[in-house]
Amino acid sequence: MSPGTLVHVGEQRLDKARISVMNYDQDRLEEKELKRIEDSFAYKDTPPVTWINIDGLHDIELIEKVGTHFNIHPLTLEDIVHTGQRPKVEDFEDYIYLVFKMLKFDETRNHVASEQVSLILGSHYLISLQETVGDVFNSVRERIRKGRVHIRKSGPDYLAYALVDAVVDNYFLILEKIGEKIEQFEERVHSESTPEILQNIHDLKREIIYFRKQVWPMREVLNTWKKTESALVQEADKLFIGDVYDHTIQVIDTIESFRDIISGMMDLYLSAVSNRMNEVMKVLTIMATIFIPLTFVAGIYGMNFKYMPELEWKWSYLILWILLIIIFSGMIFYFKRKKWL
Amino acid sequence: MSPGTLVHVGEQRLDKARISVMNYDQDRLEEKELKRIEDSFAYKDTPPVTWINIDGLHDIELIEKVGTHFNIHPLTLEDIVHTGQRPKVEDFEDYIYLVFKMLKFDETRNHVASEQVSLILGSHYLISLQETVGDVFNSVRERIRKGRVHIRKSGPDYLAYALVDAVVDNYFLILEKIGEKIEQFEERVHSESTPEILQNIHDLKREIIYFRKQVWPMREVLNTWKKTESALVQEADKLFIGDVYDHTIQVIDTIESFRDIISGMMDLYLSAVSNRMNEVMKVLTIMATIFIPLTFVAGIYGMNFKYMPELEWKWSYLILWILLIIIFSGMIFYFKRKKWL
Amino acid sequence: MSPGTLVHVGEQRLDKARISVMNYDQDRLEEKELKRIEDSFAYKDTPPVTWINIDGLHDIELIEKVGTHFNIHPLTLEDIVHTGQRPKVEDFEDYIYLVFKMLKFDETRNHVASEQVSLILGSHYLISLQETVGDVFNSVRERIRKGRVHIRKSGPDYLAYALVDAVVDNYFLILEKIGEKIEQFEERVHSESTPEILQNIHDLKREIIYFRKQVWPMREVLNTWKKTESALVQEADKLFIGDVYDHTIQVIDTIESFRDIISGMMDLYLSAVSNRMNEVMKVLTIMATIFIPLTFVAGIYGMNFKYMPELEWKWSYLILWILLIIIFSGMIFYFKRKKWL
Amino acid sequence: MSPGTLVHVGEQRLDKARISVMNYDQDRLEEKELKRIEDSFAYKDTPPVTWINIDGLHDIELIEKVGTHFNIHPLTLEDIVHTGQRPKVEDFEDYIYLVFKMLKFDETRNHVASEQVSLILGSHYLISLQETVGDVFNSVRERIRKGRVHIRKSGPDYLAYALVDAVVDNYFLILEKIGEKIEQFEERVHSESTPEILQNIHDLKREIIYFRKQVWPMREVLNTWKKTESALVQEADKLFIGDVYDHTIQVIDTIESFRDIISGMMDLYLSAVSNRMNEVMKVLTIMATIFIPLTFVAGIYGMNFKYMPELEWKWSYLILWILLIIIFSGMIFYFKRKKWL
Amino acid sequence: MSPGTLVHVGEQRLDKARISVMNYDQDRLEEKELKRIEDSFAYKDTPPVTWINIDGLHDIELIEKVGTHFNIHPLTLEDIVHTGQRPKVEDFEDYIYLVFKMLKFDETRNHVASEQVSLILGSHYLISLQETVGDVFNSVRERIRKGRVHIRKSGPDYLAYALVDAVVDNYFLILEKIGEKIEQFEERVHSESTPEILQNIHDLKREIIYFRKQVWPMREVLNTWKKTESALVQEADKLFIGDVYDHTIQVIDTIESFRDIISGMMDLYLSAVSNRMNEVMKVLTIMATIFIPLTFVAGIYGMNFKYMPELEWKWSYLILWILLIIIFSGMIFYFKRKKWL
Repeated sequence: MSPGTLVHVGEQRLDKARISVMNYDQDRLEEKELKRIEDSFAYKDTPPVTWINIDGLHDIELIEKVGTHFNIHPLTLEDIVHTGQRPKVEDFEDYIYLVFKMLKFDETRNHVASEQVSLILGSHYLISLQETVGDVFNSVRERIRKGRVHIRKSGPDYLAYALVDAVVDNYFLILEKIGEKIEQFEERVHSESTPEILQNIHDLKREIIYFRKQVWPMREVLNTWKKTESALVQEADKLFIGDVYDHTIQVIDTIESFRDIISGMMDLYLSAVSNRMNEVMKVLTIMATIFIPLTFVAGIYGMNFKYMPELEWKWSYLILWILLIIIFSGMIFYFKRKKWL
Repeated sequence: MSPGTLVHVGEQRLDKARISVMNYDQDRLEEKELKRIEDSFAYKDTPPVTWINIDGLHDIELIEKVGTHFNIHPLTLEDIVHTGQRPKVEDFEDYIYLVFKMLKFDETRNHVASEQVSLILGSHYLISLQETVGDVFNSVRERIRKGRVHIRKSGPDYLAYALVDAVVDNYFLILEKIGEKIEQFEERVHSESTPEILQNIHDLKREIIYFRKQVWPMREVLNTWKKTESALVQEADKLFIGDVYDHTIQVIDTIESFRDIISGMMDLYLSAVSNRMNEVMKVLTIMATIFIPLTFVAGIYGMNFKYMPELEWKWSYLILWILLIIIFSGMIFYFKRKKWL
Repeated sequence: MSPGTLVHVGEQRLDKARISVMNYDQDRLEEKELKRIEDSFAYKDTPPVTWINIDGLHDIELIEKVGTHFNIHPLTLEDIVHTGQRPKVEDFEDYIYLVFKMLKFDETRNHVASEQVSLILGSHYLISLQETVGDVFNSVRERIRKGRVHIRKSGPDYLAYALVDAVVDNYFLILEKIGEKIEQFEERVHSESTPEILQNIHDLKREIIYFRKQVWPMREVLNTWKKTESALVQEADKLFIGDVYDHTIQVIDTIESFRDIISGMMDLYLSAVSNRMNEVMKVLTIMATIFIPLTFVAGIYGMNFKYMPELEWKWSYLILWILLIIIFSGMIFYFKRKKWL
Repeated sequence: MSPGTLVHVGEQRLDKARISVMNYDQDRLEEKELKRIEDSFAYKDTPPVTWINIDGLHDIELIEKVGTHFNIHPLTLEDIVHTGQRPKVEDFEDYIYLVFKMLKFDETRNHVASEQVSLILGSHYLISLQETVGDVFNSVRERIRKGRVHIRKSGPDYLAYALVDAVVDNYFLILEKIGEKIEQFEERVHSESTPEILQNIHDLKREIIYFRKQVWPMREVLNTWKKTESALVQEADKLFIGDVYDHTIQVIDTIESFRDIISGMMDLYLSAVSNRMNEVMKVLTIMATIFIPLTFVAGIYGMNFKYMPELEWKWSYLILWILLIIIFSGMIFYFKRKKWL
Repeated sequence: MSPGTLVHVGEQRLDKARISVMNYDQDRLEEKELKRIEDSFAYKDTPPVTWINIDGLHDIELIEKVGTHFNIHPLTLEDIVHTGQRPKVEDFEDYIYLVFKMLKFDETRNHVASEQVSLILGSHYLISLQETVGDVFNSVRERIRKGRVHIRKSGPDYLAYALVDAVVDNYFLILEKIGEKIEQFEERVHSESTPEILQNIHDLKREIIYFRKQVWPMREVLNTWKKTESALVQEADKLFIGDVYDHTIQVIDTIESFRDIISGMMDLYLSAVSNRMNEVMKVLTIMATIFIPLTFVAGIYGMNFKYMPELEWKWSYLILWILLIIIFSGMIFYFKRKKWL
């Protein structure tokens, strides 16, 4: 496929793309759902801030219209619809393109699910594109609606920051859930050391590897964005970007700690298994070691030789029992001293 | 061997070198197969773009002619025919030399096979040299034939990008196949934990190490190419090179994840084996622990002492059976409590 | 939550925030507890140094008042009350903001507990904010009270250094305690190789991972602080900051050594377990190997065949005993040679 | 020992130092063996290129004479005779000093042997110093003798490159041999998993570690050499140095892959051992589990109780056999279902 | 404790500090032991080089006097007496402060012992401070006494280099001893695989970790020193510092190799243990597998059933023996084929 051909890669998660627009400044807020993308074109160069949110990336025609009108580079359009992008930021002078992953922890399947989010940050508008309708951006919508001072006073770059911040805040929720899982497993690893728990630990580790792979590039993305010379990002807002950057590093730090802890849990598991084996072996050894010699003694006097003087003696049987009890006690004493009992 | 002596290193994969030429600009396309390399020399300085593709590197004479006519440095010629090169990019002012690996996953042998590709990017021409006839570049040929706007409008540097892009896209196919193998193995590792599956995992790991070794240097190559100051690469096309660069990093990221996951699978395997051993031991221990004491008791009353009062009693045999059943039940109860049963 | 909304994250550890003020120069020291934060505002621009210490971060209103009066950026205020910050230093021209972790090793629970400390370093004041009342800063208070030359002659940047230094000195105490634990465990790992000791080692490793995660960013923080161009930090004091920086690196070095040593201890433990298993197996094997053949021989002569000539012989029983003793001695000799006995 | 004192460190591998001289330009070649080092001094400033090769480093007096006449820094002289140097390049304005390792794989002992080579590159001469007479440089001698264009046209810097290139080419031979060893071991690790094969793998790993330690610094050496500003290295020749640099990186890449593969082989070995243990355990368990209950049953009816009704019955013995066969079959069936048979 | 308070940290290793002075230039050498530190003050600004060596750091008063007279920064004084410093170099314009570790391998305890050495390098003097009287610097003293040209001609910076060089040369001795230990262990690990040898390996690894921690920062220290712009270090002497730097890197390289080799030895040990377990298991399995069925057969004919036709037959006993021998031989054959015998 030639670069520049728009083909949606990824599953179609939505019937029809949904387009919503928020146009605001400090005093005014206009909010509506659009039927046709063309209705949003008017906002391109209108001074107050406009946020165009598009849910659903399978409608190639729509994306192409956006591309043509907002003058988006073909590579950007391609990145938007190929949902397997590595997070990155690119400065195209007219606009800044940001792509990253919104992540969710599906607790029933112990699975980190990811959805690609693209932001196109122009001088008066911000276009956000998601694969499906989500609720992570709702907090930002609420803040705009409530007319909170800062976001209504600021430009689209602050809005972009607010969206990224909402996404990164969501990462912490995932960390929390993984943390809980780890604690559960740590408690169970001793009592239940079954192959199932190991499989669970392995699955969790796999999800952590996946999570890390998605979050790791964000570090670079936010650092680049923060240091951009572009006129589209105001100096004052770089402080905020620096703040999300710090949060991302904290997420990565915690992921690394989790990896270390999970490796340790594997060791705990393996040692629990080998301890159990040890215990099994001990039981076997104790039983066999005690009764094998006793059985041998009984075997001796079960022989049918004609001339076995002991068989005729009156106290033989009693003496034998005493002998057996002495052997038995000796063994028990030996095992006690070895601390096997 | 002195540097500059051209000797083809690698197996000869083709009878006779095949030369094809595509000469095009926005409006015109001329495409032909050449018998003699000399016929391509005319295109060296002709303004529209010319793509000379040579399949087969064993024809040293041909390579030398290309070298003489296109004014190629002896080191470049040597690198072209020594097929064990590390991917690299070198700027020789007159031309830029790119060498990298085209990779294929041979599923029957679970093997990543590599073929060396060299690109010589001049001001009006691009020479590509492969070890054998392949189909990875066909998509690019199709795009040129279809007269797609961008590639026909652009210079040879864009063509070079398109070829590298086709190769890197191919890497994703390999990742996909390796990913499938990993999933298969993960399912089998528990049910079948045989040495064969471990050998398979080990072989796959080895291929991943090989794959990584081939792809890793591409990161550096594309970064250098993107940042080149050479007049042979147009500013506008660097965006595209940056795009392939991103894809390469994504490939590397995924390879790293695979390595981590495969290490985890080794652990799963070892633990599955040790679990099975545990189970075997338990069966042995249970059987031995139950029957050894019972056998001892039976042995006692098999003795031939003359004076064993129990032997004479009427209910001895019944009492003994009751005793045996009590010991047996006690053992079973003990094992249940230990969760061995 | 929008950035800039002040919500205290973390447990409230104190009933009511405590505010204390130390205002001093070389000759004079004024020290008092404040009821209302407003009483500290007068010190903002007064030339001699003022140290305002606030214990307790849950009183949002108080923090907001500080923010308004001392002209603190909303992001800083948010960082102060969100107690999960990664250590960092930020230069806001008017002031420098430092946040880091005060750590304590709770020996009864073998747990590293952390508390967040924020420092706001202005031109004439230093505000320190802690989660609860602590004693780490007391040594600095003592030095100020004693009128020690250097601290009384220096500005608030030296005071900030002194506080950070007190905190880092505290890290060494934790290292010492962890070092002691490791030595204890090393002695116990052989004699007691129980799952409990492994769990203990694992828990300690976890705390070390946590400790490292808290201290690691300090390296960067102190390096940035040392290299700051801000007028708020005097050249002469950068030497002192460099000194704490060196100490921090030493802490990190030691943590890394501890990690290596603890990994080694895991190996020791696993090998101790497997040695014990070996010993158990040997006892079993020796007993079984000696008595199983003997029992077989006894079994033979316990058979009831009518025609078994040996049974009738006079010396059979004696010969048999001799035979048994020979087999027994041979086995013992064999095991001695194998060094199992 | 004071720096500057010349003491030969390393074993003396040669009776008497051998000195040979090649003096050449494009048209002329003069080649001779010298008895006295003094005879080479005339060549110091003579324009055509002179290559002075000295085999044997124990003749301190000779080295000192070279040092005095060619104006070599005492540190360089010390480095030449201390054969444990780390590869490095040093620019002394008058000359460039290069020291590195010539490596050989001694197949009988599976051992990588190293020999130190020093090059002193002046404006008209190149002095090469080896510990013993070797054949690696012969290929270069041949090229000079054959009057091959490039080397005869170039200065001593190209000659130095040619020597380093010959040494690095030699590294590939070692890689090849190690690669073969690895393949042998991979085949044997399953069929023969004896401690000997593990010892072999360990020894090979050790040699790889040693090999890596010797080659790793070459990366830096060649990079520094390539980037030198010294007038002693011509711009045109830096391309060639870059080429050896690429080869060195390729060697290092391959060594790293080998390390990874060898670690995997250790895992394979350990798993082969544990599989065998498993098999042993299974045989034991099957035999014991089948016969212990049967023996118990036989023991029961070996008892001598007076009142055991079964003993008197006519079909008891037959029924018992049927019972034994049923138990036996049940066990076999159970093991089949468990896939132990 | 406030920074700047001089308190000696570390054990007092000497009764009374010992002060010795060497004042020399090319022609003259004055050497004496001082009773009072004050006698050394005269040498501060006298042109020829003066080396003041102080053994013993517990005499705080003495250190303070040195500090006052030679105008040493309080942080430096603190670093001198706190013997737990990380190696570092600091440029205080008036003087350069170097601190590093002198290491010794105590063979009886297999322990790397460290002692802190501080150097204060002024324009005409060098003060060296050690914890106790040592012999590492004696070689340097000898060279000065012998009037060797270079050291007597050079300034205090060369003297400082000579001391550091003597210390780093000492590191090689430790490497050698550790290398010998490793070889001993490698030989013993197979024949003796006892827990003691593992403990020894672990202890050695621990010492290597400690050694590495002490030497690692030297790399940075020497690099910084070499690149210093200070007038106190002459250009010509930087070559020498570069030489010690190279040696330090070599030490670090070797330590890393040792770490790798020791990890491999752990694997060897564990595999030796598991091989032994395997052998034990095999003996058990062979004995049990052979005799358990035989014992069962004997048990059958020990039964007391009235109607057991075989018991009456004449050749039964003989046939039984033949049967037992066949079973026995079959088992032996089976084990031979499995290569367990």
